[in-house]
Amino acid sequence: MALRHIALFRWSEGVTPAQVAEVEEALARLPGAIPQLDAYAYGADLGIGADTFDFAVVADVAGEEAFAAYRDHPEHQAALGIIRPLLAERASAQFRTGGSD
Amino acid sequence: MALRHIALFRWSEGVTPAQVAEVEEALARLPGAIPQLDAYAYGADLGIGADTFDFAVVADVAGEEAFAAYRDHPEHQAALGIIRPLLAERASAQFRTGGSD
Repeated sequence: MALRHIALFRWSEGVTPAQVAEVEEALARLPGAIPQLDAYAYGADLGIGADTFDFAVVADVAGEEAFAAYRDHPEHQAALGIIRPLLAERASAQFRTGGSD
Repeated sequence: MALRHIALFRWSEGVTPAQVAEVEEALARLPGAIPQLDAYAYGADLGIGADTFDFAVVADVAGEEAFAAYRDHPEHQAALGIIRPLLAERASAQFRTGGSD
């Protein structure tokens, strides 16, 4: 049973596309830097739903120990240092996945 | 470029494990009923993060047309009919995924 971590971000008013691009650059470094990441997907909301958040991150790892390694990794902490000042709101959850379907 | 849909739920006070089990049963029917679902994962939050939501759903589809087919499918609407009365809060986003990494 693998573990999936989800984080949704709503940006504060005035956050620019250049700032979001900086977030994406920081996140792009993580799969290469954190071997515990079995899969990593992120991106800007497409604007096709009602009252959606602005950005999503999904990290797939083997379990709780791997999740903690990701969470505490210096490159992830560096990305959070870029993300946090831009946030109006954050929503997150971690749940078990079967690994398929 | 595939599309990933995420929905996070925070249950209202007083929602019972039996009611959450009903939600899971309704969601379990969807991969068999909705051919547009390339992958479907959902589950209760593990309680290992701070201020997390209570439940997560992740749907992977080919694109916007497939997402609309999922969203509007009668079995999905039936599941929403079970979920909505239990909700204190919902967070969602749709973003493009490369299909791998």
